[in-house]
Amino acid sequence: MSAKIKVGVLGATGMVGQRYIKLLENHPWFEVTYVAASPRSAGKAYKDAVKNRWLIGENIPAGVADLTVEDANDEKKALGKCQFVFSALEMGKEEIKALEAAYAAEGIPVVSNASANRWTEDVPMLVPEINYSHLDVIAEQKKHHGWDKGFIAVKPNCSLQTYMMPIHALIQAGYPVKRMVVTTLQATSGAGYPGVPSFDMIDNIVPFIGGEEEKTEKECLKILGKVQDGKIVNAEYPVVSSTCTRVPVIDGHTACVSLEFADKKPSLEEIEKIWTSYKSVPQELNLPSAPEHPIVVRHEENRPQPRRDRETEKGMACVIGRLRPCNVFDIKFVSLSHNTKRGAALGGILNAELLKAKGFFDNL
Amino acid sequence: MSAKIKVGVLGATGMVGQRYIKLLENHPWFEVTYVAASPRSAGKAYKDAVKNRWLIGENIPAGVADLTVEDANDEKKALGKCQFVFSALEMGKEEIKALEAAYAAEGIPVVSNASANRWTEDVPMLVPEINYSHLDVIAEQKKHHGWDKGFIAVKPNCSLQTYMMPIHALIQAGYPVKRMVVTTLQATSGAGYPGVPSFDMIDNIVPFIGGEEEKTEKECLKILGKVQDGKIVNAEYPVVSSTCTRVPVIDGHTACVSLEFADKKPSLEEIEKIWTSYKSVPQELNLPSAPEHPIVVRHEENRPQPRRDRETEKGMACVIGRLRPCNVFDIKFVSLSHNTKRGAALGGILNAELLKAKGFFDNL
Amino acid sequence: MSAKIKVGVLGATGMVGQRYIKLLENHPWFEVTYVAASPRSAGKAYKDAVKNRWLIGENIPAGVADLTVEDANDEKKALGKCQFVFSALEMGKEEIKALEAAYAAEGIPVVSNASANRWTEDVPMLVPEINYSHLDVIAEQKKHHGWDKGFIAVKPNCSLQTYMMPIHALIQAGYPVKRMVVTTLQATSGAGYPGVPSFDMIDNIVPFIGGEEEKTEKECLKILGKVQDGKIVNAEYPVVSSTCTRVPVIDGHTACVSLEFADKKPSLEEIEKIWTSYKSVPQELNLPSAPEHPIVVRHEENRPQPRRDRETEKGMACVIGRLRPCNVFDIKFVSLSHNTKRGAALGGILNAELLKAKGFFDNL
Amino acid sequence: MSAKIKVGVLGATGMVGQRYIKLLENHPWFEVTYVAASPRSAGKAYKDAVKNRWLIGENIPAGVADLTVEDANDEKKALGKCQFVFSALEMGKEEIKALEAAYAAEGIPVVSNASANRWTEDVPMLVPEINYSHLDVIAEQKKHHGWDKGFIAVKPNCSLQTYMMPIHALIQAGYPVKRMVVTTLQATSGAGYPGVPSFDMIDNIVPFIGGEEEKTEKECLKILGKVQDGKIVNAEYPVVSSTCTRVPVIDGHTACVSLEFADKKPSLEEIEKIWTSYKSVPQELNLPSAPEHPIVVRHEENRPQPRRDRETEKGMACVIGRLRPCNVFDIKFVSLSHNTKRGAALGGILNAELLKAKGFFDNL
Repeated sequence: MSAKIKVGVLGATGMVGQRYIKLLENHPWFEVTYVAASPRSAGKAYKDAVKNRWLIGENIPAGVADLTVEDANDEKKALGKCQFVFSALEMGKEEIKALEAAYAAEGIPVVSNASANRWTEDVPMLVPEINYSHLDVIAEQKKHHGWDKGFIAVKPNCSLQTYMMPIHALIQAGYPVKRMVVTTLQATSGAGYPGVPSFDMIDNIVPFIGGEEEKTEKECLKILGKVQDGKIVNAEYPVVSSTCTRVPVIDGHTACVSLEFADKKPSLEEIEKIWTSYKSVPQELNLPSAPEHPIVVRHEENRPQPRRDRETEKGMACVIGRLRPCNVFDIKFVSLSHNTKRGAALGGILNAELLKAKGFFDNL
Repeated sequence: MSAKIKVGVLGATGMVGQRYIKLLENHPWFEVTYVAASPRSAGKAYKDAVKNRWLIGENIPAGVADLTVEDANDEKKALGKCQFVFSALEMGKEEIKALEAAYAAEGIPVVSNASANRWTEDVPMLVPEINYSHLDVIAEQKKHHGWDKGFIAVKPNCSLQTYMMPIHALIQAGYPVKRMVVTTLQATSGAGYPGVPSFDMIDNIVPFIGGEEEKTEKECLKILGKVQDGKIVNAEYPVVSSTCTRVPVIDGHTACVSLEFADKKPSLEEIEKIWTSYKSVPQELNLPSAPEHPIVVRHEENRPQPRRDRETEKGMACVIGRLRPCNVFDIKFVSLSHNTKRGAALGGILNAELLKAKGFFDNL
Repeated sequence: MSAKIKVGVLGATGMVGQRYIKLLENHPWFEVTYVAASPRSAGKAYKDAVKNRWLIGENIPAGVADLTVEDANDEKKALGKCQFVFSALEMGKEEIKALEAAYAAEGIPVVSNASANRWTEDVPMLVPEINYSHLDVIAEQKKHHGWDKGFIAVKPNCSLQTYMMPIHALIQAGYPVKRMVVTTLQATSGAGYPGVPSFDMIDNIVPFIGGEEEKTEKECLKILGKVQDGKIVNAEYPVVSSTCTRVPVIDGHTACVSLEFADKKPSLEEIEKIWTSYKSVPQELNLPSAPEHPIVVRHEENRPQPRRDRETEKGMACVIGRLRPCNVFDIKFVSLSHNTKRGAALGGILNAELLKAKGFFDNL
Repeated sequence: MSAKIKVGVLGATGMVGQRYIKLLENHPWFEVTYVAASPRSAGKAYKDAVKNRWLIGENIPAGVADLTVEDANDEKKALGKCQFVFSALEMGKEEIKALEAAYAAEGIPVVSNASANRWTEDVPMLVPEINYSHLDVIAEQKKHHGWDKGFIAVKPNCSLQTYMMPIHALIQAGYPVKRMVVTTLQATSGAGYPGVPSFDMIDNIVPFIGGEEEKTEKECLKILGKVQDGKIVNAEYPVVSSTCTRVPVIDGHTACVSLEFADKKPSLEEIEKIWTSYKSVPQELNLPSAPEHPIVVRHEENRPQPRRDRETEKGMACVIGRLRPCNVFDIKFVSLSHNTKRGAALGGILNAELLKAKGFFDNL
């Protein structure tokens, strides 16, 4: 069938929802046909619901501007209007959890950006290059809930994306990582809109992001986990200690990483080779949003920089620079990724592309 | 004698030089009577030499505006016009080294902000709260050079100041520190003027500062060293690994620190007590620029922040927040200091106050 | 009586309320003894009500930190606890109007920062240097409402303060101004907290501030009006056309002004003389917050600049630079004032000082 | 002939030079085959000459990275290596003037971004939509100098571009403009690299740009001039008064404009219609860099904004918002253009495209 898959966006008026709509504008497989948000926006044309606060580039994509916004709390409204949904809901964790389940129960798969279901045991938390095999738990998830076609898949916290692929590449190449100390300098778009007040971001940084460090330290281990008996068993390593700070940057999280290998220690040359040759399932499947090179290594002494490097590989690469020895651990480096592309909406779209390619959207 | 000591400022037109002039405006002991800079400025009234680029607050201090700028390369010009000098010279390292020695040879003590003499064996690199005892090498320095009244004392790199006092406090309390991983987020004023282009600091950070990480990792050990046989013998610990980044902040360096103790591990409560009760010689001597509390601990979850906390204790405190366990090392915390006050000019002035109080400026 | 006057702050947890509390910390005449805010904060200690969001410098003034926040909607709570109040209320215009009247009716004078009563006919909108004579309408106001001791006095919009004193100085010197075109570049603190999102203020400006241009164009004429028969009769000139923009600056509004004189045209030298010699009642009365020089003229080609010049004269001066001929009108210049000091809280305090000095707080 | 025209870039290592190289990366007509800069860079591979300071996106275009940089002062080096040059020279005005003439004398046309030849009587200062007819003076220019194939064409100051097309559209529609008061908020990229120090652009604006106001006020009249007897005769109107300020924005100049018509006054509706239907020769010729809509009108109350709107129509549109009556003149509006695309390199490329389409590059 040549027609595109019909897609809904939940939380369509928020920053991540808008980003989904923008990034899906000319998507080869998916087409936004349904938008839902809070009751306050329900009933309005999308263009009126985001009037004076369209955040992504100059214009709302033409096909979406005139869609009527529905109430995201009413999952039945979506029936027949879209085949699966991207969830960019912004509400309480328990509410999101219940609502995502309600969509799944109606037979509508949910590809979620929210943190609510990240720790649900049978919900895969996907970085397609790393843990595509976690898709295997979806069958168990469906069975457990008695869901027929619907299911839930999530993506991890945006700040992790900044360094998980290079870590995975090293582990996979036979160099397990034991411990890491990470400091992140995170962009304000990560907090949504209105998000961080300008009063806090002019001539200032804020050395704290609520809940971020805990997420970072924990989610890492689930992402690197293995599927056993229909469940994801977390990895034990690496142990991560992170400090997350907010800096006056629009898009692009930067991570300063020091790490210690568990046993063998590759040379800097080997590491660079491992990173630049890193490819995985999304590249093999040639998924539309997959970066050709998931990891890009730069040699300038002062890179990566958010404004210059965030758009590398359509905003889907992890850009690394300053690889050098660490005199406390083994190596240190600086890593960067686009938090609202790789780290949020485009990462979610890549998840959906993987699900589609693996047949999870057949027969919807 | 009630009259103030006459002071010269070398490199008086640069940002640190201007900061010295501003901070000495109403100093109880010192009075700026001599300003020197590059030959390009020599012969001009100071106010004309810095016309349209006075950087510190709205106005040039009245007593200095009309001084004639002299050529800093000619140390003999300073004779009779000032009793000691602050060096904020901006030129090649070897040139500065030779020039500071030339002033000392003329009997003019040099209290320097420059990095040129930081590794000269018999030159003390002072943080008065930590290593006042290093003043003992000055006698050796004079003897070695055959200098009568002149000598050189320096201060360390500004970024170190952000966390050296808390480390010293812990060591002194019986908890030696073995290893530290530090990431700094440094203010642009640290690069002088014009310094970092705005093109690099709008919607951006730069994860690199030339030479800074090396300085940070090494200077730490000299500061914590001991005087033996008229020389400073460096400490062996802590081993420091640092990543230094530049962020869009005017003043105030922030450091994210993870550290491991060598043997005993104090509780978080003990650490806070050690820090808040930390006092040293500058406090005992009641030096004019000494902070009453060199270390200030904050309990808000999102502090310290540069714009809000940098002026704590006249810009001379190290402000610490977010003290918490580290799951890789023992503890982590965020620390902040004012890089052009504690970390540069006011730190230099405190050094001079210590020297004065200890009699090093007698009989000039 | 030597004791200070007891003062309440309504809207004490917002940005302007906090600024009042900070600026009154060591005020010679007034002492904050009462703080009130929304019901959400009522009952908490002030320090807890603003926990993690104290915005002005590092610490809450000691005397206020432990005050219990009362519900600002209940004017009777203030009885006996303070003699007059500063209103920094943030709610709907009609609610503020009713609430300020309720306080006045209880015998508590209200010195307001809010816009609600700016166009109430018998409420003076004060810039003490300009229209101290408008105090004369207070007697009429009290009579009209049957208020005994209470009354309301307000201050104008912050952006006007940036250029009203220089305009008034010219008019008063015999050079009435006919027309003005003004573009303002306004600081984000003018929008309160959280106020303008950082997403809008990084690598961006916003050429619109809701309602600001209309206020600017109208309020000017009331400020310059005359009292006739107990009422303020607005001036007819100057006609003002303004464009108000928001820029990434913490404090300090800048105005670019082109103006045309009504008849006689002073030389640039005369204008400078008029401005630098401008003094008025606050200076004659030596009010504690009055600037010695309400207008300061700078000659550097690139000044005034917000970060460098906003603190001039304790943040109470209008700082002018770039005075030059205009080839469309007569002259143009750039003018700057501190929007949260002169333009908000300290301007309000100066109003209260004028009221006190003129006997309006006697017998409270 | 299907091969592309070979192009040189003078001043290739500066910000505008880099922008030219990036924008010509996949140009359908032109190909960069020659790069020249100061003697300091001469002899180096281009990628080494801009090492650690490549400013435009992440990578140097592949075809240019390995070109050897030549000394721009030696025009003979360019012979045979390129057919015409873009001049983005950064040196003294008289030097540029002489050097551009030297290239022209060698038969190499110069399409210049520099201001040196803007006031040369027989050099056209082109905004292709407005004054394509000024190309007629080139014949005279060649004759006067005795140049065979070479000639010089320039573009105006970037800040003018922000509002010249809408003004021209109105004039052309029969509504001549008499007077304008303009305040610009200009991006820092306009000052090149390193350009404006970050110390001046954090929590600050600078209300002055050297020479900019004079250029703005004068160049306007040449652009709108007519060709008579082989020379450009300047227009007499509009009289412009401008204030130019620098704000912390990377790219995108904003202009706040108030204007008075000379006689007839169109309605706001008519004006919008004039603007949105504005087309000219570049659109008719379908030049590769011509915007389909040179003027774009937005209706949101808070637009245009630099970060959101600068890329409109590939960065070649003038984006207008906030069209409304002015109570001093007739109308006011806010206008925005991309200063390093429309206002610099891409504007220069459009000039070259016009020259090519009109046959000025035939037989080179």
